[in-house]
Amino acid sequence: MIPARRAGVDVGGTKCLGVVLDEHDRVVAEAQVPTPKGADAVIDAVVEVVEQLGGHDTLGIGAPGLVTRSGVLRAAPNLVDVQEFAVAALVGARLGERVEVDNDATCAAVAEWRLGAARGLDDFVMVTLGTGVGGGVVAGGRLVRGANGFCGEIGHMVVDPDGPPCPCGGHGCWERYASGAGLGWLGRRAVADGRLARSVELAGGDVAAVRGEEVRTAALEGDTDALAVVDEFARWVALGLANITNLIDPKAFVLGGGLAASPELYLPPIRNWFGRLLYSPHLRPHPELRFAELGPRAGAVGAALLHDVH
Amino acid sequence: MIPARRAGVDVGGTKCLGVVLDEHDRVVAEAQVPTPKGADAVIDAVVEVVEQLGGHDTLGIGAPGLVTRSGVLRAAPNLVDVQEFAVAALVGARLGERVEVDNDATCAAVAEWRLGAARGLDDFVMVTLGTGVGGGVVAGGRLVRGANGFCGEIGHMVVDPDGPPCPCGGHGCWERYASGAGLGWLGRRAVADGRLARSVELAGGDVAAVRGEEVRTAALEGDTDALAVVDEFARWVALGLANITNLIDPKAFVLGGGLAASPELYLPPIRNWFGRLLYSPHLRPHPELRFAELGPRAGAVGAALLHDVH
Repeated sequence: MIPARRAGVDVGGTKCLGVVLDEHDRVVAEAQVPTPKGADAVIDAVVEVVEQLGGHDTLGIGAPGLVTRSGVLRAAPNLVDVQEFAVAALVGARLGERVEVDNDATCAAVAEWRLGAARGLDDFVMVTLGTGVGGGVVAGGRLVRGANGFCGEIGHMVVDPDGPPCPCGGHGCWERYASGAGLGWLGRRAVADGRLARSVELAGGDVAAVRGEEVRTAALEGDTDALAVVDEFARWVALGLANITNLIDPKAFVLGGGLAASPELYLPPIRNWFGRLLYSPHLRPHPELRFAELGPRAGAVGAALLHDVH
Repeated sequence: MIPARRAGVDVGGTKCLGVVLDEHDRVVAEAQVPTPKGADAVIDAVVEVVEQLGGHDTLGIGAPGLVTRSGVLRAAPNLVDVQEFAVAALVGARLGERVEVDNDATCAAVAEWRLGAARGLDDFVMVTLGTGVGGGVVAGGRLVRGANGFCGEIGHMVVDPDGPPCPCGGHGCWERYASGAGLGWLGRRAVADGRLARSVELAGGDVAAVRGEEVRTAALEGDTDALAVVDEFARWVALGLANITNLIDPKAFVLGGGLAASPELYLPPIRNWFGRLLYSPHLRPHPELRFAELGPRAGAVGAALLHDVH
């Protein structure tokens, strides 16, 4: 039986967002507080959000970074002063209940699977294209968590060992190209090459201030240089999707994160490159490319569903 | 209840190898015939092997290439004049029974999972390093087949879009580097660079005849140039393993195929590079690197087990 009030909290770099789902999967409460610095303060913030949400029967939490199967956040590049953070145990002790915790992109995958773009699918991969790239995998009708719980760290798949350095210590990680940060990097590279005047203008004339946003805006205006950078970006996105297809053969990808806000701009070139980069494209149905439906609440909604799928 | 006689046939590029497993998973019969050209002849060959094996209760077949979930071999680069080959239906009609068919590397994964190096594991990836690179995936205690049955085509994961062309039409596919063919290519590149004199000597002085085998032999003799090529090869193998780890977080890899015959040569440098290329290596248990235990019969043994896992 589905509990009447399932609460989920998405701990993000800037805010902790909470929701409550009723037994019909409707969002019946929502609350948020800024994400503070330090593990103790984050626990306080999560508890505060949960209290604002009113009563709940179950609680799940999404957190950014490597989350173990027992709910320890090993590393969180986007949280300040947080590491080896036993989220499930600490929040559970404060509230006196069992708390499920998983990676935020995995939570988004669960939300899209149960209530969004991937409803009814047994095999799909969620790809969150934001500042970085995250992922979640459903295969054979089940959420894949991995031996340690680290399934879906797809942003650090190396797609060019001679590529630009990544803060993770590697070179040429997929998210150096296929994220919002990657779009900005490709843009600044084009500027250095004497292109992309409109995007530089949008950045107030400051070459170093060109980010993904200035490329996107110029491309939406029809600027040819910016559209070429978007096409290059789309090729990198598609290359990673093709690699994932080779490994686990999903029925569909669900693309989410900040870049999912402009599917009309990104989807056609991604689909074009995906068809060209797929292995044996003439011998297989091409995995569908869908855009996420649940928007910025996907992480919190998926967290609320964690008790159902773990 | 486990049937008393489970038959499996591995259809390879040069031979069709069949085995029968009894209810204790012992190989109690074995037979082989050369693989002929053309789909009809291959069916005849499989039926002949099955007849040579004596009676059986169930039959599974492993085939090289893209095998659909209903047992159609879509494309088989290593079989002559074979495409869109309905193996399960055709053999099933000839023998009057239901036949399970899967990709040969997937069969090897099943064999190692049930009877070999991956016994008891819920999350591992089989990687066959032969002329090409194949794979099979077990996640959450279940064989992952993929939406179409094409899970594990890991050899065509692109690891350098500016890399050498692949017969598949892509560039820089993993198997261009991490296979027996890749080891030979890295070797010939070293020769062109003025190195690897001993391997050229082993190839009868013919630079173009240097293959993986000549690199391996020279390296086993302690030749420094050949060991450097093996190290480069190991780095490419490890890069792909790290990418797969980021996607599905296995507990272990099982390395099989022809290259698994010399683990003492390949394992130390692969392990070294794997530890360096893994994402966040200090925050996680490193997936174990194991070598396959079942040898050249792995595909046939796994085929015999297909009815148990599909």
